[in-house]
Amino acid sequence: MGEPVSICEVGPRDGLQMQKAIMPTAVKIEWIVALARAGLREIEVGSFVPPKLIPQMADTGEVVAASRTLEGVSIVALVPNLKGAQRAYESGADAINVPVSVSEAHSRANTNKGSLEQVAEVRAIVDWVRAQERPMKIDAGCATAFGCSIEGTVPIDRVVTVASALAEAGVDGIVLADTVGYGNPAQVRAVVRAVRGAVGGVLDRLHLHDTMGLGIANALAGVEEGIRCFDSALGGLGGCPFAPGASGNIVTEDLVFMLESMGFETGIDLDLLFAAREVLQRGLPETALLGNVAKAGIPKTYHRAA
Amino acid sequence: MGEPVSICEVGPRDGLQMQKAIMPTAVKIEWIVALARAGLREIEVGSFVPPKLIPQMADTGEVVAASRTLEGVSIVALVPNLKGAQRAYESGADAINVPVSVSEAHSRANTNKGSLEQVAEVRAIVDWVRAQERPMKIDAGCATAFGCSIEGTVPIDRVVTVASALAEAGVDGIVLADTVGYGNPAQVRAVVRAVRGAVGGVLDRLHLHDTMGLGIANALAGVEEGIRCFDSALGGLGGCPFAPGASGNIVTEDLVFMLESMGFETGIDLDLLFAAREVLQRGLPETALLGNVAKAGIPKTYHRAA
Repeated sequence: MGEPVSICEVGPRDGLQMQKAIMPTAVKIEWIVALARAGLREIEVGSFVPPKLIPQMADTGEVVAASRTLEGVSIVALVPNLKGAQRAYESGADAINVPVSVSEAHSRANTNKGSLEQVAEVRAIVDWVRAQERPMKIDAGCATAFGCSIEGTVPIDRVVTVASALAEAGVDGIVLADTVGYGNPAQVRAVVRAVRGAVGGVLDRLHLHDTMGLGIANALAGVEEGIRCFDSALGGLGGCPFAPGASGNIVTEDLVFMLESMGFETGIDLDLLFAAREVLQRGLPETALLGNVAKAGIPKTYHRAA
Repeated sequence: MGEPVSICEVGPRDGLQMQKAIMPTAVKIEWIVALARAGLREIEVGSFVPPKLIPQMADTGEVVAASRTLEGVSIVALVPNLKGAQRAYESGADAINVPVSVSEAHSRANTNKGSLEQVAEVRAIVDWVRAQERPMKIDAGCATAFGCSIEGTVPIDRVVTVASALAEAGVDGIVLADTVGYGNPAQVRAVVRAVRGAVGGVLDRLHLHDTMGLGIANALAGVEEGIRCFDSALGGLGGCPFAPGASGNIVTEDLVFMLESMGFETGIDLDLLFAAREVLQRGLPETALLGNVAKAGIPKTYHRAA
């Protein structure tokens, strides 16, 4: 049996929020069910943000409520603040993902707060969640950890500072996010090593984008550095607000293909993933889905690690 | 200064031979000149094969003759046999690339010969070339070294057998080619190590395709294993005859971006590469060029290693 690697599908959140079209709630739920059927055990189904800012996510409460009945699947919601965390808890989410931008400029542009002010918000979320009856996992993402479209280069010691503050705040997991997709494999190795040196195993996930075509290579560097959880999106859904036409999140199908081919066990079935892709395409008929394995077909040399 | 990595642009050969349209000779030459201007120091400009089989390559003699005047650029031609090698020599090529398919079935389908019969042809080419006045470099490619669309899995010991026979035949360099793009990074590491263990430094190049989306990750594995020469194609030109719509060679632009970002020195300028891309697009107006860096634009974090 291969070593397990967990993939969190973020298409319903990070993918859909970049789409002009708003996917109907029923199709979202059908898509999430198809993803669970393909073997995904973590799905980020939406975000609790003001609907005026991101109307695509206005139905997240309803989507979480419908998804949480899926057995063995952790339903994740992105929340920017305590209010969002409270809404996520009330809707029944299993886990929340709170982004903190390492780039000060990016942080202010997104949350009107500096990075360390946003860490204080994370601390308030941790305090509130821990006081509730039901447990809810709290992940915090170091956004723009590999570069920023506003500030440019993001120094590694700055990533270490923010990650250390998040670990001290008591989150369950820390994600390093290449929000704009500027990272390269050598940098992934260096940042993972530096942050792990500071916070240890609480660093457990990478969130990578394929803006420059290096997303899967960056995932390779990550898995070789010992990371065992990755975010990705079916059909590479997503994009970059600063680069129209650019690629989005790394493609779930291709990531599964690579990891299984290398002997890692994702628990995900490619054929059922293609079936989920059909649901997605039906929900977004105007969107060109990415993904090389889906286009070329599964080769006869492919065997799942399981 | 970063460690140098050499990129051989194979678009004019491996890319164009897969196109339905035939690029006019003058545009080919204009494209090759633009590639040289961007810093490419090895360009595979065509192949000496029967024009009835591959009409796109009928003008290779003329293209080689025009390209060889480019200063400091090694002009490479693919040749399947002694006759092709003689034509390459007469046209003034600096180097030839002779493919030998490791998969017996693929070898017979492409050359009407088994793998080791084709090695005998390579031996005849080496003998003939070494007897000429002018030196001409001889590279031999282990095609289908990472899997075959006909046979499926290609055992590593079979790759080692063919590579060892090629080394014994006296070629200058050996290329491991993922002809159909089935390889994964763990396999790249394993095959490179096994072949290098058998033939040493004469193994000096990888030829990778992006059929399954792992091409750049496979290149990363290769460079981390010490390989310092890679084939790639501008705009990811190429494709796979067995998978219509599949991606072709790894994208030169994205490969340069990764290597330079990691501190390797390719000698290639991305902006001038984009200029060459415009020439290519003009020559193939119906073809959708691939490449994430070209779509997203060069990020402000990018610095050439040089």
